[in-house]
Amino acid sequence: MAWLNFLDLRSLPVKEAEAVVLPIPYEATTTYGAGTREGPEAILAASRQVELWDEEHGWDPSAAIRLATAAPILPEVSGPQAMLEKIKRVVQPWVQQGKFIAALGGEHTITAALLQVLQTRYPDMTVVCLDAHADLRESYDGSKLSHACVMRRVYELGRPLTLLGVRSYSKEEADLMWVAPRFKLFKAKDLHTPEGWQAALDHLQAIPGPVYLSLDLDALDPGIMPAVGTPEPGGLSYRQVLTIMETLTRRGPVIGLDLVELAPIPGHRVSEFTAAQLLYKALGYIFHSRQK
Amino acid sequence: MAWLNFLDLRSLPVKEAEAVVLPIPYEATTTYGAGTREGPEAILAASRQVELWDEEHGWDPSAAIRLATAAPILPEVSGPQAMLEKIKRVVQPWVQQGKFIAALGGEHTITAALLQVLQTRYPDMTVVCLDAHADLRESYDGSKLSHACVMRRVYELGRPLTLLGVRSYSKEEADLMWVAPRFKLFKAKDLHTPEGWQAALDHLQAIPGPVYLSLDLDALDPGIMPAVGTPEPGGLSYRQVLTIMETLTRRGPVIGLDLVELAPIPGHRVSEFTAAQLLYKALGYIFHSRQK
Amino acid sequence: MAWLNFLDLRSLPVKEAEAVVLPIPYEATTTYGAGTREGPEAILAASRQVELWDEEHGWDPSAAIRLATAAPILPEVSGPQAMLEKIKRVVQPWVQQGKFIAALGGEHTITAALLQVLQTRYPDMTVVCLDAHADLRESYDGSKLSHACVMRRVYELGRPLTLLGVRSYSKEEADLMWVAPRFKLFKAKDLHTPEGWQAALDHLQAIPGPVYLSLDLDALDPGIMPAVGTPEPGGLSYRQVLTIMETLTRRGPVIGLDLVELAPIPGHRVSEFTAAQLLYKALGYIFHSRQK
Amino acid sequence: MAWLNFLDLRSLPVKEAEAVVLPIPYEATTTYGAGTREGPEAILAASRQVELWDEEHGWDPSAAIRLATAAPILPEVSGPQAMLEKIKRVVQPWVQQGKFIAALGGEHTITAALLQVLQTRYPDMTVVCLDAHADLRESYDGSKLSHACVMRRVYELGRPLTLLGVRSYSKEEADLMWVAPRFKLFKAKDLHTPEGWQAALDHLQAIPGPVYLSLDLDALDPGIMPAVGTPEPGGLSYRQVLTIMETLTRRGPVIGLDLVELAPIPGHRVSEFTAAQLLYKALGYIFHSRQK
Amino acid sequence: MAWLNFLDLRSLPVKEAEAVVLPIPYEATTTYGAGTREGPEAILAASRQVELWDEEHGWDPSAAIRLATAAPILPEVSGPQAMLEKIKRVVQPWVQQGKFIAALGGEHTITAALLQVLQTRYPDMTVVCLDAHADLRESYDGSKLSHACVMRRVYELGRPLTLLGVRSYSKEEADLMWVAPRFKLFKAKDLHTPEGWQAALDHLQAIPGPVYLSLDLDALDPGIMPAVGTPEPGGLSYRQVLTIMETLTRRGPVIGLDLVELAPIPGHRVSEFTAAQLLYKALGYIFHSRQK
Amino acid sequence: MAWLNFLDLRSLPVKEAEAVVLPIPYEATTTYGAGTREGPEAILAASRQVELWDEEHGWDPSAAIRLATAAPILPEVSGPQAMLEKIKRVVQPWVQQGKFIAALGGEHTITAALLQVLQTRYPDMTVVCLDAHADLRESYDGSKLSHACVMRRVYELGRPLTLLGVRSYSKEEADLMWVAPRFKLFKAKDLHTPEGWQAALDHLQAIPGPVYLSLDLDALDPGIMPAVGTPEPGGLSYRQVLTIMETLTRRGPVIGLDLVELAPIPGHRVSEFTAAQLLYKALGYIFHSRQK
Repeated sequence: MAWLNFLDLRSLPVKEAEAVVLPIPYEATTTYGAGTREGPEAILAASRQVELWDEEHGWDPSAAIRLATAAPILPEVSGPQAMLEKIKRVVQPWVQQGKFIAALGGEHTITAALLQVLQTRYPDMTVVCLDAHADLRESYDGSKLSHACVMRRVYELGRPLTLLGVRSYSKEEADLMWVAPRFKLFKAKDLHTPEGWQAALDHLQAIPGPVYLSLDLDALDPGIMPAVGTPEPGGLSYRQVLTIMETLTRRGPVIGLDLVELAPIPGHRVSEFTAAQLLYKALGYIFHSRQK
Repeated sequence: MAWLNFLDLRSLPVKEAEAVVLPIPYEATTTYGAGTREGPEAILAASRQVELWDEEHGWDPSAAIRLATAAPILPEVSGPQAMLEKIKRVVQPWVQQGKFIAALGGEHTITAALLQVLQTRYPDMTVVCLDAHADLRESYDGSKLSHACVMRRVYELGRPLTLLGVRSYSKEEADLMWVAPRFKLFKAKDLHTPEGWQAALDHLQAIPGPVYLSLDLDALDPGIMPAVGTPEPGGLSYRQVLTIMETLTRRGPVIGLDLVELAPIPGHRVSEFTAAQLLYKALGYIFHSRQK
Repeated sequence: MAWLNFLDLRSLPVKEAEAVVLPIPYEATTTYGAGTREGPEAILAASRQVELWDEEHGWDPSAAIRLATAAPILPEVSGPQAMLEKIKRVVQPWVQQGKFIAALGGEHTITAALLQVLQTRYPDMTVVCLDAHADLRESYDGSKLSHACVMRRVYELGRPLTLLGVRSYSKEEADLMWVAPRFKLFKAKDLHTPEGWQAALDHLQAIPGPVYLSLDLDALDPGIMPAVGTPEPGGLSYRQVLTIMETLTRRGPVIGLDLVELAPIPGHRVSEFTAAQLLYKALGYIFHSRQK
Repeated sequence: MAWLNFLDLRSLPVKEAEAVVLPIPYEATTTYGAGTREGPEAILAASRQVELWDEEHGWDPSAAIRLATAAPILPEVSGPQAMLEKIKRVVQPWVQQGKFIAALGGEHTITAALLQVLQTRYPDMTVVCLDAHADLRESYDGSKLSHACVMRRVYELGRPLTLLGVRSYSKEEADLMWVAPRFKLFKAKDLHTPEGWQAALDHLQAIPGPVYLSLDLDALDPGIMPAVGTPEPGGLSYRQVLTIMETLTRRGPVIGLDLVELAPIPGHRVSEFTAAQLLYKALGYIFHSRQK
Repeated sequence: MAWLNFLDLRSLPVKEAEAVVLPIPYEATTTYGAGTREGPEAILAASRQVELWDEEHGWDPSAAIRLATAAPILPEVSGPQAMLEKIKRVVQPWVQQGKFIAALGGEHTITAALLQVLQTRYPDMTVVCLDAHADLRESYDGSKLSHACVMRRVYELGRPLTLLGVRSYSKEEADLMWVAPRFKLFKAKDLHTPEGWQAALDHLQAIPGPVYLSLDLDALDPGIMPAVGTPEPGGLSYRQVLTIMETLTRRGPVIGLDLVELAPIPGHRVSEFTAAQLLYKALGYIFHSRQK
Repeated sequence: MAWLNFLDLRSLPVKEAEAVVLPIPYEATTTYGAGTREGPEAILAASRQVELWDEEHGWDPSAAIRLATAAPILPEVSGPQAMLEKIKRVVQPWVQQGKFIAALGGEHTITAALLQVLQTRYPDMTVVCLDAHADLRESYDGSKLSHACVMRRVYELGRPLTLLGVRSYSKEEADLMWVAPRFKLFKAKDLHTPEGWQAALDHLQAIPGPVYLSLDLDALDPGIMPAVGTPEPGGLSYRQVLTIMETLTRRGPVIGLDLVELAPIPGHRVSEFTAAQLLYKALGYIFHSRQK
């Protein structure tokens, strides 16, 4: 079996890598806007055009990080429970070996599995999620493991959870967010004001301990990221997302990462280019800060 | 909630109908070629352009058949088992009342649920399936309820099964087909020869008792039906599919029908037009023969 | 006949509604960039993904407003005059009953018919129009009822007219705008400066009496609203349009609304999502202010 | 003003030409499947790739025929009546001078205008039309000049009318066709049988006097001509259309021609290539037979 | 560097392979219809959905043939001469070792390089080419190494050349074909008659010695293979191409193969599926006949 | 031969023009993201919708400038060297006659040829280039005349070079930029800060003598200019590009211009509209300043 490599690098075996790009082309609980199963390959293909030199920090992260692209985790179609178990089986040994995992969805549901494993190693972690939607429903379309419930499942792990960029949620979710401890919301609308934006950065800066970053690409404005299942106008700019990532990495360790929900639009490649660039930027920030 | 009606007719309540068009936008076990969840709506939208007058038989089937378009069965995402149960719950009473059901997928998996219910009323039925693939695998991607296994599940109901138009299958499936009783295969290649074609029509003509027709749209040649998940060259012509449908209806009662696996290509509407036309033709043939 | 409902709500009969979403898939005088006839259905389809809870004001407008989606007004193709008459016949009784009408184009020409009717009830109304083009030509392509003349026809009703977001007009239109009484222009370029933006908001705030809002979607920047017939770079942001709508509703009654000129791009759904969201936001602002 | 030339030839002035390709990008009475206004330019652009040498007859029609591409007739949007008058004004002098006109639509309605003018010069002409639809409605969407009525208007000119390739019509149209004198129908279904095909060719061969050929591109099978407003499966093959054209030209003079109803699909250029090729083939057959 | 494997097999190193699929994403001399550079990857991606079991001969060619997918030959952009030299450098050792090469273009020009190398090993070879165009120009757009000249360059190697499926050529090419020794033409039009088709098969059957097969995908009808730079209506059917390939392999050794000129249409995958299937069928026929 | 005119004006012969829009649909050294060869025609087609009246300066540049659209320079496919020579042959006389040339690519490589000719007349010129990439590689894909090397070749002419909007370059390019005299870089990231932006404008304002402006459209943000070969997020806004153009023209003579690298996305026309608008704005600014 063959698959594309992130950045089209000479492939390192996973066991020799310190960072693993892990494609998870899973899409089974979304009922609208099909296509996230094709997200990982589109991002890997676009990544071949990403310039390796990082013009911001003046280094080549791809040469400095021992990076591997793992074999895609192929979907288990008997239901989301089986799929999440499969993901956990794959990533468990890597997490135990201290590898950094950057997962590429597929639908957002996969984050729940990744965090269940990471929590065993980083019990003091905080979860930071960029998303247009709250994803805090108790259940959706007959399952508690729907993509629309993923942050509810993550929240139930008992760790602090910060959502940024949200601009769409139900009353049920609003009621929960209003009272939930360990929970912090920065709505997209507020991030577009200088004060709201500063408040968010201050909050992120102050997060102690390890942080996991889940990036649902619909957090970005659909003008620059149209290829998502449910585009919501009024989203974050590319520069804002970079700044959030930089702020988190300057603050302390980022111990895992996912980019999810890209559903490629045939013939319109901007979204996957931007996603590939975001992934490389994130890895660059994270490992640059580790080296200091 | 509102949805489109087949043929854009004045909507009849399901309970007053003798034939029910049932949209089932379910897509969860396919791991390639996303989009069948958008198939039913695309077919219903295209059906608004279908001419109601049937130029072949010189009548207006839409006026003669008491026809309703049911509310779509919304996906259950906890796994295919739950979804199939949901479908069965919906169709059971209609089957008991003797209504004719024309289901619009969505993925092929739904056929298994429909047939489980129909068998309770028509224990002597024969299943005729047009498909580019055999769909006879025991299990696929971790589930026995994958779309790639649907005809295996159907076969296990213990009824005669005829496949037409097949041009892609595995060794496992070949081995099964070689020895299976109650099973008949007409490969696409053979249907393109005059003798093979005649043999198939003769076989169909001779089927006794009630027949269920499952039409996976990838049975048609991808030149005229490009919007399917896995197009296979060398498929059936539009005229061939009409002739098969006509032959079955002239022979005896057709007691159920599905059209599945349309995955619309945005901007290229030929496939959904053809599917809508096929559905109307099928209903016309079936009810025309009933009236005689 | 069946059609999609705005927000996929349980359909209320028009006669019981206080607000009516009225699809008018009319497109006959545009000679470039075909497709606005498919705009209303695309917006209604996208509206099914709009979250009902309004996170800005913390309420559910869809539950609070008695809302209906009317049957589309099907095109009359003998010429724009006949079509405008048809529109007037449809909306006249609703306006007399005090219903709020939110029309979905289709081409901009329809606004002229709506305003002719509304003026009979609101003789003191002011018209506010967001548009990339002035649409003030006397005649175009052989007709005074072309979409390129609609604001000229509206202006001739004798009411104050304010245009915002304009960045494209002819010398003829420039000459008119320079001297026209009751007329106010805020060019897109000026709205991108803090002073120009404030001046526009001040002007809107000060408008007395009832206001009608006509939103040609090409007023928005084509980066976020690409699906329009003649995209013009340098347009308004989503946030700007929301702010304009909010300002108008805080000020006094908004008595009618249209969203026009969406020409969907197959496979690229951002535009219709944004349009659906804008319509819901507008209804929310308008009815929220009414309740206070 | 500039426009593309058919075949990208060195442009001959219309007054020096014996054959005039006339683009008429008119689209105003169609209410579904927008885009025929972009048909003429797409065909002209594709024609630049057509090989000038005619491999069937071993000559170069483009060198032998004095050919011009006229300026497009820009749409008149006040209604179809005004547009038809405009077309008549343009073509009248050319017809009087005996020029051959090959019109490129745009919607089918334009044929009515062309034939009204041609009849003045060729009172004994017969009209042959290839179309998936009968277009024989008395009135449609409020106008007698809708594209769905064009053959009814043509029939009313009092000349013999032959329709080929039809596979979609209403009861009203069926009733008319059943009894109409001077009228002959060859349904698509029949053209797919050897006997039906031969009967059609025999009929065409026997038509006396001048013939006008109207080619609605939806007569072709949508597998090879997908870019039409309302694709109907089961259409004519490319070879069949060529044979019909050849048969007509071998028989006697063809005195006018139109290709209508191409609505280009962005990114999928097969339809316009085929249309351009058909136009060149038709001109080649017609002028080759004249030279003999 | 990573690339996709044909059929997604466990990758064999090229040195252990007997057959090498060689992607050559070269596109530099085409001046219309961009995109053949993306052809090889599209075919490889589609090949992952090809069923490995060959239902015609009842075997699994992928298990029987020692097959490798080589690294793509990256374009040399200083001009076609340098690119052809590069291709020759890559394939020379493989040809010397007797490996079978199946090249995936990219533009047709690459065939010239492949044949220059193959001729050194197979001086008695015959070249069979399926193409809509003759590609026999002496020079085009300022180069003798344009894709439009490739068969002229091939003919100059001094070996017999048979073209099938041609339906577009210039007078210059017609003149050459009329008199050229060692040259045989079967026009598409003739292949659509029973006699012409039989004559072609008879001719192919009688070719002595080794045969090279060059398959320009535009030889197929654009209804089933729309994704080519210059689609020409009236092409070969899928079944015809299979029969030609089978006939050649039953006759004697086929010693090389290329599939060229696929220019993928985003979102419309039929063409690459068909191309992938054709490649697998060809390899199956060739190696099946070798084993006998 | 016929081609579209910029703005669809009455065509002026080149010899009578003071400004020449020159389409150069050349694309041969790009190995990714095909389609720039279709850029010029797409821009010319879109330009027909550009309003002639310039609402910023209140004049009609199209009436004031003697403007011609030249015949496209057709590609020479024997290699980039031959193509650049061809371009030089075409433009040399026009430059000698003092005509202003606005070239439309095609790939960026063409700029090198244009500047070699312009330097003979304007030996004191400065080159200002907007680009997402530095294009400063010594050689790429085997050629020193690749699009990725064009600014290196330009720099070697010995004139000052300013790059703006860059956000992607290699270490080799970074090393060069660090030490190069006559070279100035304004990275995109810096242009997004008020200070960086002001510094850039100050620098541009202070450039003495004639300036040539090369606009690689990927300098703009892909949100508003998606149709480029390698989109890079974080680019310039439309307003920024206008301001840069205005600043340069207020400062002193701009003596040449190119817009390159548009690769149209079928069905998504925003990019070509924006490019056409940018070209008209640039010509307006340049000739407006000349008139003062």
